[in-house]
Amino acid sequence: MVLDAAAATLARQPGSVDRLVRLAAADMGGVDRLITDRMQSDVPVIPALAEHLIAAGGKRLRPLLTVAAARLSGSGQEGSGNDHCLKLAAAVEFIHTATLLHDDVVDGSQLRRGKVAAHLIWGAAQSVLVGDFLFARAFELMVETDSMRALQILAQASRVIAEGEVLQLMRSHDLNLSQAVYLEIIAAKTAELFAAAAEAGAVSAGVDAEKSKALRDYGMSLGLAFQLADDALDYGGATETLGKNAGDDFREGKATLPLLLAIARSGPREAEFWERAIGRREQTEADFRRARELIIGTGALDATLDLAAEYADKAKAALSIFPANDWRESLESLADFAVSRRA
Amino acid sequence: MVLDAAAATLARQPGSVDRLVRLAAADMGGVDRLITDRMQSDVPVIPALAEHLIAAGGKRLRPLLTVAAARLSGSGQEGSGNDHCLKLAAAVEFIHTATLLHDDVVDGSQLRRGKVAAHLIWGAAQSVLVGDFLFARAFELMVETDSMRALQILAQASRVIAEGEVLQLMRSHDLNLSQAVYLEIIAAKTAELFAAAAEAGAVSAGVDAEKSKALRDYGMSLGLAFQLADDALDYGGATETLGKNAGDDFREGKATLPLLLAIARSGPREAEFWERAIGRREQTEADFRRARELIIGTGALDATLDLAAEYADKAKAALSIFPANDWRESLESLADFAVSRRA
Repeated sequence: MVLDAAAATLARQPGSVDRLVRLAAADMGGVDRLITDRMQSDVPVIPALAEHLIAAGGKRLRPLLTVAAARLSGSGQEGSGNDHCLKLAAAVEFIHTATLLHDDVVDGSQLRRGKVAAHLIWGAAQSVLVGDFLFARAFELMVETDSMRALQILAQASRVIAEGEVLQLMRSHDLNLSQAVYLEIIAAKTAELFAAAAEAGAVSAGVDAEKSKALRDYGMSLGLAFQLADDALDYGGATETLGKNAGDDFREGKATLPLLLAIARSGPREAEFWERAIGRREQTEADFRRARELIIGTGALDATLDLAAEYADKAKAALSIFPANDWRESLESLADFAVSRRA
Repeated sequence: MVLDAAAATLARQPGSVDRLVRLAAADMGGVDRLITDRMQSDVPVIPALAEHLIAAGGKRLRPLLTVAAARLSGSGQEGSGNDHCLKLAAAVEFIHTATLLHDDVVDGSQLRRGKVAAHLIWGAAQSVLVGDFLFARAFELMVETDSMRALQILAQASRVIAEGEVLQLMRSHDLNLSQAVYLEIIAAKTAELFAAAAEAGAVSAGVDAEKSKALRDYGMSLGLAFQLADDALDYGGATETLGKNAGDDFREGKATLPLLLAIARSGPREAEFWERAIGRREQTEADFRRARELIIGTGALDATLDLAAEYADKAKAALSIFPANDWRESLESLADFAVSRRA
């Protein structure tokens, strides 16, 4: 019943990533060629490990943002001579891949993008070091664009992501985590790179500060919408859709918003359940099902999806200063897509 | 007897790091302030963990190189307005600290700079993430100097270091490692940052390509000399001098040059010992003593120290294009110091 209402809200704005993917196809072909080219190394295990993760794909959302922001800001299509945004896009994907490699080591994750996590195949040590390699390669690519401002944006983003990861590691099992701190964590560990990816793309096109700020704001709100929806999907989705195991957050005892809201809305009878299953992480097979029922029953899932929808709207509003064109509409559709993903 | 001969050779050129430390004292005070300032974060565990390692000191050799290279290249002293070399020096120390944090996780090391390794106190996850934080901070500092060339040099160095670490991880237990590959590994994982640190300092002073190349060559040879001497000290030094446990390399089965040369020079009777103790890493308490005797007895230790001395001479020769002054002499003395450290 509650889920149906949420589904109805979201059905009004299904959104799509496909439109942007089609529009940016030529550019992203160039980005893919750069990625393949620059993950090479004389040390063969490096491209092998990197390719395991990069070839598994994902949606390449972050480099897409860089390309789209540059094009919306008036940069010509590929072939027009300005391939700086393609290099920045590849750099963004390398930074993202590096954080995923380190993240999976830190969390001990089993699955990533539907495949066995790299550290389970090559070992944690190689995952850490190949992450370092990709991070450095990202900066080498940025240097080639000769844009100090883009370097500044992405260096800062890399630092903020690390701070967010540390904060999450410290607070992630805290049942009393406030919504504000939760949002601070996901802003740093997820949305910051969306924001920086879009802003760097805009900067590479040479736009004014108002427009690069608008694209930064778009990326930040979009990133928050995506992470909130992801955290909701972990209690509402199926493993095949997620590319990770549904219920992973619960089993890891991760204090995400659906869980925090459900805890806040639960009665004393449930407090003991949460304390055991999340606080002490003593879980039985049936616990995830019970948690899911509580998260849906208390309206915590809907509230999370509502907040995601608010950020999606905010993302779209940030684009209002740009002329209506295919790029802008594709980015608007992407914001709707962020919150319309269903199991 | 063999050790005595080596000691006599080295006694002719004792060298010192103190002279450079005194000369660069004011600059290094500025570098230390930058380091303390920029390792701060709103997430308290980050400066706590970083300080554990950074406050433990070490000799700050790499940032010293950056400062000295800039001064030898004609950059004014601190206060003259150009503090770019100080920021680059702090960035170099952050990159170095980040690699140490990741390295200790990768190797499972117990001691670093005479203190318990950070990952044993805060956990491997935090060490990985704080390493990432420091790495990103390094790039933020570099951006402030507005020198794209310095960014290029240090981004490349960061990438080469990661490649060297991966290569070492793959080949480090290989008893048939050639001297050439061993040198390739230590050039990448150690000497590259010495080279980049000196080159970046030179570049920040705006010297011509010949001089920045000379300082890069100095750093590369110095780094090789230091690593060779370190690898020798692991079989000839005491724990207090090393800041790590003597015999660590042996116990980890690390194929360093003293070991590789001793294996090559051992008879068939010892082959079984090496295969068991290093190849299969089945070691008894007495094994390190036996390995040490073989490494000294076969002349492997001396040969390693001789090669280190060659690189120290090469480092000094690279400085010949600079006018003789205090900075040059201090750097020459540092090269001698690299190979005169005794247990």
